[in-house]
Amino acid sequence: MSVRVLVVGIGSGDPAHLTGEAVAALNAVDVFLVADKREATRDLVTLRAELCAAVITHGRYRFVEVPDPERGPDAQRGSAAYAEAVRAWHAERARRHAGTITDEVGSEGTVGFLVWGDPSLYDSTLRVVGTIAGQLEASGVEVDLTVVPGLSSVTLLAARHRIALNRVGQPVHITTGRRLVEEYDPALGDVVVMLDGDLACTGLVDAHPDLEIFWGAQLGLADEALVAGRLVEVLPEIRARRDALRQARGWVMDTYLLRPA
Amino acid sequence: MSVRVLVVGIGSGDPAHLTGEAVAALNAVDVFLVADKREATRDLVTLRAELCAAVITHGRYRFVEVPDPERGPDAQRGSAAYAEAVRAWHAERARRHAGTITDEVGSEGTVGFLVWGDPSLYDSTLRVVGTIAGQLEASGVEVDLTVVPGLSSVTLLAARHRIALNRVGQPVHITTGRRLVEEYDPALGDVVVMLDGDLACTGLVDAHPDLEIFWGAQLGLADEALVAGRLVEVLPEIRARRDALRQARGWVMDTYLLRPA
Ligand SMILES: C[S@@+](CC[C@H](N)C(=O)[O-])C[C@H]1O[C@@H](n2cnc3c(N)ncnc32)[C@H](O)[C@@H]1O
Ligand SMILES: C[S@@+](CC[C@H](N)C(=O)[O-])C[C@H]1O[C@@H](n2cnc3c(N)ncnc32)[C@H](O)[C@@H]1O
Repeated sequence: MSVRVLVVGIGSGDPAHLTGEAVAALNAVDVFLVADKREATRDLVTLRAELCAAVITHGRYRFVEVPDPERGPDAQRGSAAYAEAVRAWHAERARRHAGTITDEVGSEGTVGFLVWGDPSLYDSTLRVVGTIAGQLEASGVEVDLTVVPGLSSVTLLAARHRIALNRVGQPVHITTGRRLVEEYDPALGDVVVMLDGDLACTGLVDAHPDLEIFWGAQLGLADEALVAGRLVEVLPEIRARRDALRQARGWVMDTYLLRPA
Repeated sequence: MSVRVLVVGIGSGDPAHLTGEAVAALNAVDVFLVADKREATRDLVTLRAELCAAVITHGRYRFVEVPDPERGPDAQRGSAAYAEAVRAWHAERARRHAGTITDEVGSEGTVGFLVWGDPSLYDSTLRVVGTIAGQLEASGVEVDLTVVPGLSSVTLLAARHRIALNRVGQPVHITTGRRLVEEYDPALGDVVVMLDGDLACTGLVDAHPDLEIFWGAQLGLADEALVAGRLVEVLPEIRARRDALRQARGWVMDTYLLRPA
């Protein structure tokens, strides 16, 4: 038996941001699975279904939900027992996915995993799919994995602000809200921040009063918001816009670029 | 008078990598100009024309070449006179572009600039277009600039190797061949190298014998090549493939990711 697995970058929800290759890939899928549930709010599930409905020209595809295993009792975060529990939980989740694939897809079928933005940036799907593929291959199922690249939110951020990410000949650094303050150094070049739940750049204002920020939220969606300017001057506006978006939609996703003046 | 300017990321030459938005944008253009000639080898010009022919459904578009001004006598690189000469040359080039736009496009027309990959990474088009727009606006022509994002070679590199650019929660650093050796530090996270004429990573082998490399050349083209493995082990193979590609096509474009083991 063999199964085709497509991991498809779908951009931010706007069907016009899909590549031709991604549209063809979505049309080739029999069963869509969701590998990374951290973001599976109802709203995102709906957006995903709408995107498929907009570009898939047949009715033979299905979404199948694989129930997550129970999480064991919370050992101390960071302890060896915790790491082991997480590993076991991941393995069990992969086993359930592999089981679903053999049961639901059958020989010569095609499984699809949809990834917001591009699969290459801060997304666990490729890791999860790697584990699933390992288990399938161990039970004699050949896996043919293709990754279809998509527009990341970073690319979209730059396009909306009509800027390059780098200054001439200079580097670009992409990091997380959690790491930003500790890591920041103007020598890193322009710094893009993702996965930032609470505008960590606030912690840079005192030491780097001249930073410029190019901020974007809900990029590609109807409530897209953009703000650019001197960090110290525009932070209050960004904070207000961010809060208003979260209020209105129930969640907010934002990313930004910091540039030394 | 007003003119629409579209800066369109066209990926690496494979029409399937265009987004729906990019296809629509290309179809809306009356006149295509080339802003950044550094890479205007005959071969790339042909690829660009083929891409347009593949997706534009009418025959009313034209490519117009704006002749570059003569470069003045070479002052000392890095000197104040040199910087001034470069600035003057840039301004003159922008003036010629602005003139061509008013002459060839006329009111309510649409000008397109095609950018390989994504306009946000190591590409001068947005800077050049900014200068052109400034000159047009100074002479009373309104400019409505839209940037259409595309798949960068970095996104394609990751997809082909079926990897994420980052390790879990870790940063990604994008830099140039010229900066790599001086800048490299494992604390930067995974490091992507572009604009590297001669595999600068060779200079890291001794100090970082455990680095892994994910290398790709001519990504998206018929002669695409991929190599992955321990840097010290696969460097000779990469060098040989790179030389062979350059021999065969007359040029080679490559990019790679370095990951601490
Ligand atoms: C788990 S990561 C996934 C990134 C995704 N793979 C990509 O290529 O954009 C989620 C983070 O991406 C950024 N992000 C994703 N979608 C976004 C959007 N529509 N607007 C702004 N930022 C977004 C935010 O920083 C968010 O915290
Ligand atoms: C001037 S930069 C332009 C980058 C482009 N804007 C992008 O988004 O990919 C040129 C560099 O991009 C990389 N590059 C561009 N096209 C490539 C391809 N088809 N395969 C591999 N690398 C490529 C190489 O590192 C090359 O030196």
